[in-house]
Amino acid sequence: MIQITLIQIDNYGPWTVTPNPRRESDLQALQSRLYCDLNLQFGAHKGLVFYTRFDNLIAITNGIDLTTHERIQNSIKNRYPFTVSMAVASAKTPYEAQKLATRKIQEHGSAQDEYRKEVLDVANDFLDNGYVQLAHVDINNITGTLTDLENAYDTYLSVKEVQLKLMKELKKYGAMGFFIGGDNFMCPCNGMTESDFINMFNDIEESTGVELKAGIGIGKTAEDASNMADIGLELIRDGKTECQVCTLNYENHSIKKKSPKNFLCPI
Amino acid sequence: MIQITLIQIDNYGPWTVTPNPRRESDLQALQSRLYCDLNLQFGAHKGLVFYTRFDNLIAITNGIDLTTHERIQNSIKNRYPFTVSMAVASAKTPYEAQKLATRKIQEHGSAQDEYRKEVLDVANDFLDNGYVQLAHVDINNITGTLTDLENAYDTYLSVKEVQLKLMKELKKYGAMGFFIGGDNFMCPCNGMTESDFINMFNDIEESTGVELKAGIGIGKTAEDASNMADIGLELIRDGKTECQVCTLNYENHSIKKKSPKNFLCPI
Amino acid sequence: MIQITLIQIDNYGPWTVTPNPRRESDLQALQSRLYCDLNLQFGAHKGLVFYTRFDNLIAITNGIDLTTHERIQNSIKNRYPFTVSMAVASAKTPYEAQKLATRKIQEHGSAQDEYRKEVLDVANDFLDNGYVQLAHVDINNITGTLTDLENAYDTYLSVKEVQLKLMKELKKYGAMGFFIGGDNFMCPCNGMTESDFINMFNDIEESTGVELKAGIGIGKTAEDASNMADIGLELIRDGKTECQVCTLNYENHSIKKKSPKNFLCPI
Amino acid sequence: MIQITLIQIDNYGPWTVTPNPRRESDLQALQSRLYCDLNLQFGAHKGLVFYTRFDNLIAITNGIDLTTHERIQNSIKNRYPFTVSMAVASAKTPYEAQKLATRKIQEHGSAQDEYRKEVLDVANDFLDNGYVQLAHVDINNITGTLTDLENAYDTYLSVKEVQLKLMKELKKYGAMGFFIGGDNFMCPCNGMTESDFINMFNDIEESTGVELKAGIGIGKTAEDASNMADIGLELIRDGKTECQVCTLNYENHSIKKKSPKNFLCPI
Ligand SMILES: Nc1nc2c(ncn2[C@@H]2O[C@H](COP(=O)(O)OP(=O)(O)OP(=O)(O)O)[C@@H](O)[C@H]2O)c(=O)[nH]1
Ligand SMILES: Nc1nc2c(ncn2[C@@H]2O[C@H](COP(=O)(O)OP(=O)(O)OP(=O)(O)O)[C@@H](O)[C@H]2O)c(=O)[nH]1
Ligand SMILES: Nc1nc2c(ncn2[C@@H]2O[C@H](COP(=O)(O)OP(=O)(O)OP(=O)(O)O)[C@@H](O)[C@H]2O)c(=O)[nH]1
Ligand SMILES: Nc1nc2c(ncn2[C@@H]2O[C@H](COP(=O)(O)OP(=O)(O)OP(=O)(O)O)[C@@H](O)[C@H]2O)c(=O)[nH]1
Ligand SMILES: [Ca+2]
Ligand SMILES: [Ca+2]
Ligand SMILES: [Ca+2]
Ligand SMILES: [Ca+2]
Repeated sequence: MIQITLIQIDNYGPWTVTPNPRRESDLQALQSRLYCDLNLQFGAHKGLVFYTRFDNLIAITNGIDLTTHERIQNSIKNRYPFTVSMAVASAKTPYEAQKLATRKIQEHGSAQDEYRKEVLDVANDFLDNGYVQLAHVDINNITGTLTDLENAYDTYLSVKEVQLKLMKELKKYGAMGFFIGGDNFMCPCNGMTESDFINMFNDIEESTGVELKAGIGIGKTAEDASNMADIGLELIRDGKTECQVCTLNYENHSIKKKSPKNFLCPI
Repeated sequence: MIQITLIQIDNYGPWTVTPNPRRESDLQALQSRLYCDLNLQFGAHKGLVFYTRFDNLIAITNGIDLTTHERIQNSIKNRYPFTVSMAVASAKTPYEAQKLATRKIQEHGSAQDEYRKEVLDVANDFLDNGYVQLAHVDINNITGTLTDLENAYDTYLSVKEVQLKLMKELKKYGAMGFFIGGDNFMCPCNGMTESDFINMFNDIEESTGVELKAGIGIGKTAEDASNMADIGLELIRDGKTECQVCTLNYENHSIKKKSPKNFLCPI
Repeated sequence: MIQITLIQIDNYGPWTVTPNPRRESDLQALQSRLYCDLNLQFGAHKGLVFYTRFDNLIAITNGIDLTTHERIQNSIKNRYPFTVSMAVASAKTPYEAQKLATRKIQEHGSAQDEYRKEVLDVANDFLDNGYVQLAHVDINNITGTLTDLENAYDTYLSVKEVQLKLMKELKKYGAMGFFIGGDNFMCPCNGMTESDFINMFNDIEESTGVELKAGIGIGKTAEDASNMADIGLELIRDGKTECQVCTLNYENHSIKKKSPKNFLCPI
Repeated sequence: MIQITLIQIDNYGPWTVTPNPRRESDLQALQSRLYCDLNLQFGAHKGLVFYTRFDNLIAITNGIDLTTHERIQNSIKNRYPFTVSMAVASAKTPYEAQKLATRKIQEHGSAQDEYRKEVLDVANDFLDNGYVQLAHVDINNITGTLTDLENAYDTYLSVKEVQLKLMKELKKYGAMGFFIGGDNFMCPCNGMTESDFINMFNDIEESTGVELKAGIGIGKTAEDASNMADIGLELIRDGKTECQVCTLNYENHSIKKKSPKNFLCPI
């Protein structure tokens, strides 16, 4: 079971144009700063946040209780010109969890209901023994095939195309995909297997010509899972694996003592 | 003529995994903070930056000279664990300008060339009398049709689909499109007409069912143009226009004295 | 027993002038940002940081273990152009604790030893049942006596004079004092009594003419203690106390249910 | 003539306790972030800001016009939970300039007048040919005499004592002094001579035992002046000067081509 939190800025649309529209460079600075803070503050508790639509953000929050959510919500209220609502939910798949979390916020009122402020609710019980499975997906040699060859916008367009395909494919498995910069995507994918990814990557290569690889990490928190996923990606880069997908489970993996280079890819 | 600057982090891929991979919530905080600072610093000179791929960012920099670019580049070097390269170019269309800027950076070396640091170059002469035309594109009533009804991820998926269609359509005109949060896109589109937009919006509505509107601003700088685009969007919302597209030119528009509500949509 | 952490930037002096001196507005932005992040990240665990000398910062970290310190240290390394060393110590008085923490960092090498990086050490055992006593000291009506009357620099000079007197007086009790903005000082003061403060305030009023008040909070963490101190200050402002000092203990104080206005000042 | 801007947060005291007091680590993060942004935004125009009391900040703004001040004020309004007032003034000495600026803000109302928001005013005409003289004062070998030997708090206390003495001495000349971290002070000092500084340093050494040095920079903007001051400090460190004070004028100093090490200290 994975735990997802949906964070939604309260009545943000109206705020951006009242009393008058606001300078766009300021809104970009403000939105990206909120996103930065949320990753520092949820990150302090081993969580991970995805900017998603900037006014609605999806976070993986296994291990983070309601009081901690409240303190972060309160911190935003103390420092920003708006407030945020949060709902937490757990489910077998990430897609299902965010669905429950969204519904829970919606029960309290519209995103643009001027009276609905700082919702803090849970859709179901907090997890004892949940886990996070994260695939860190990466394009092979984007530098040599696109960044150094094509113009910046076409490279960007190509990456967005891959992103949309990936997101649609992942959804079939109840998984989600988020762009995290460069040629990288972080995909909460509890329940998916390496075969699922290999098949998906073959399809995407056929339709776009782009080759993908993925380190898949499993851990009790988003941080543990993503650290494992990163190591898996490096094992692939170092040629220590047979295939383009490598799964590492935090429980089996002693990161401090052993060098990761001793680990075979546990298919 | 529009002036575009491409900003590229030097050797960032290797840095993210040397000596070991880095915690993803930290990389998200770092990348979004760089993006925030660039909007504050270029914004201080009436520029506007789009996060694009976070390691490669596209900015509209009409009116901003090379010395100012250098001071911003130097400021990044003083405060970040990496450096950035910048190239500036002007052209009739935004797409052409970023193409020239990209080529200029590429002439100096690979994005992952460990010896290429802090490129600062221009593809052609700085503009005397350039202008910026920006379309602030927005989905009609996303709150009532998606945000309050659908789950957060499906709403996100829908917005990404609209984004991809919009980007591909705009490219035909040499224009670009960037997601700026919520249901909003900012599109540098020098040379495009309102008819172009109306036709494009009809096509998108037919294929996705989503209705778009756009305020189009024209000004000497990105800030002037985007402020006009925002006002145009409000005129549409206030029912003061016939169509779903409204163009305002900063030169004709005295923002301080007159109330914008006196302005008809100058088709 | 209070737990104090000393945070020291590694080899910062040389870094600021190598290869050349750096723009001062950038150094100010960088230093204040590190301070901001440390308060967000230690704050996420109910700690509190004081900027002190900006290259050496003192924090109250009751309840925060070594692993959490390490994760914050690692986060700084991932996002800043330098690294920080940290040492943790507990003692009966704040002054004694920071003394032990300083010595522990010094044992590992000079602040400008280029090979000494990311020290992470403890002077003694982590606390089970420590507590934090914080006095939030405030000048009476600075707005009416100084801010609205005097010029900004002379008001500033007056506040700095009060700060120095306060710091010297507090040191006699093994307590410390830090300026936190405006006319406010936060003073870790485990072991001090309200009488100690009242006497100290009388002396300061005699020599400077400035009237002080203080809310004193006691709690298991810096956050609980400072929240109590803030409430104490409000009780004084509301005239609900006899004297200019008011102590509240988090254990006796139910902040959620009861209105603080029911509480008499427990002298 | 130097140009000073006083920046004052509107009605901040009441905001910090309404409806309830706010978590202190959040207020520290908020205040330091405002300070950081002001240095990035005024810094983008070659200005320099000193945190002063955090709710009242003093900046050197030679070369920065009223429109630019307004855009920064507007940017704060767009991104913070409060607004700021600003007043600009020029005078022969920094002390006199801030005095005129303070009076100008006070004419509009109290710092805690709930109806006084976003004052933007000037005390006198903007300068055509003003200049900035900045002394970057630094303690000799603080690392070897204090940082590596004494405990952090006593070192901090020593630096605060030096700061107060320095501020009081400087005031006699109509100059100001601000702590900028470590063992460093930045002192706007238009009109002062090197002899003034040498005498002042002798007095301070006699009373505190602390040895000071200073690079003094003269330029059209705060940035030019502080860059010169930094170079002057390095010349002293490199033993290229006779005395502990070194003045460099930006006009005489070609920073790009010639190595600063060719320059003798122009006493
Ligand atoms: N968010 C995030 N982005 C990363 C990470 N690693 C790399 N990137 C991004 O990916 C970009 C490209 O780097 P690489 O993927 O290493 O380069 P490549 O040319 O594709 O090389 P290979 O992936 O090794 O084939 C970088 O510029 C970063 O923007 C990471 O761990 N997290
Ligand atoms: N970047 C940016 N985002 C905006 C702006 N205005 C609104 N948004 C975003 O758009 C989201 C939806 O707001 P609206 O577009 O006003 O809401 P709506 O329901 O679509 O209403 P209408 O557009 O009036 O039909 C907000 O939550 C913001 O994220 C803006 O000026 N800039
Ligand atoms: N760090 C911090 N600063 C505060 C806090 N409360 C107020 N301040 C600062 O103190 C300044 C003055 O506010 P007050 O102390 O309320 O004003 P005053 O005129 O002295 O009024 P009284 O203290 O009620 O006599 C504000 O502008 C803030 O800078 C707080 O909780 N924390
Ligand atoms: N704001 C600011 N602080 C600085 C600057 N240079 C150094 N510092 C601070 O001063 C501290 C001590 O560095 P130094 O002054 O180089 O060290 P020192 O031991 O005193 O050596 P000398 O000054 O060369 O005698 C650093 O840790 C920084 O905090 C600067 O340019 N600006
Ligand atoms: Ca790659
Ligand atoms: Ca909309
Ligand atoms: Ca007060
Ligand atoms: Ca020094």
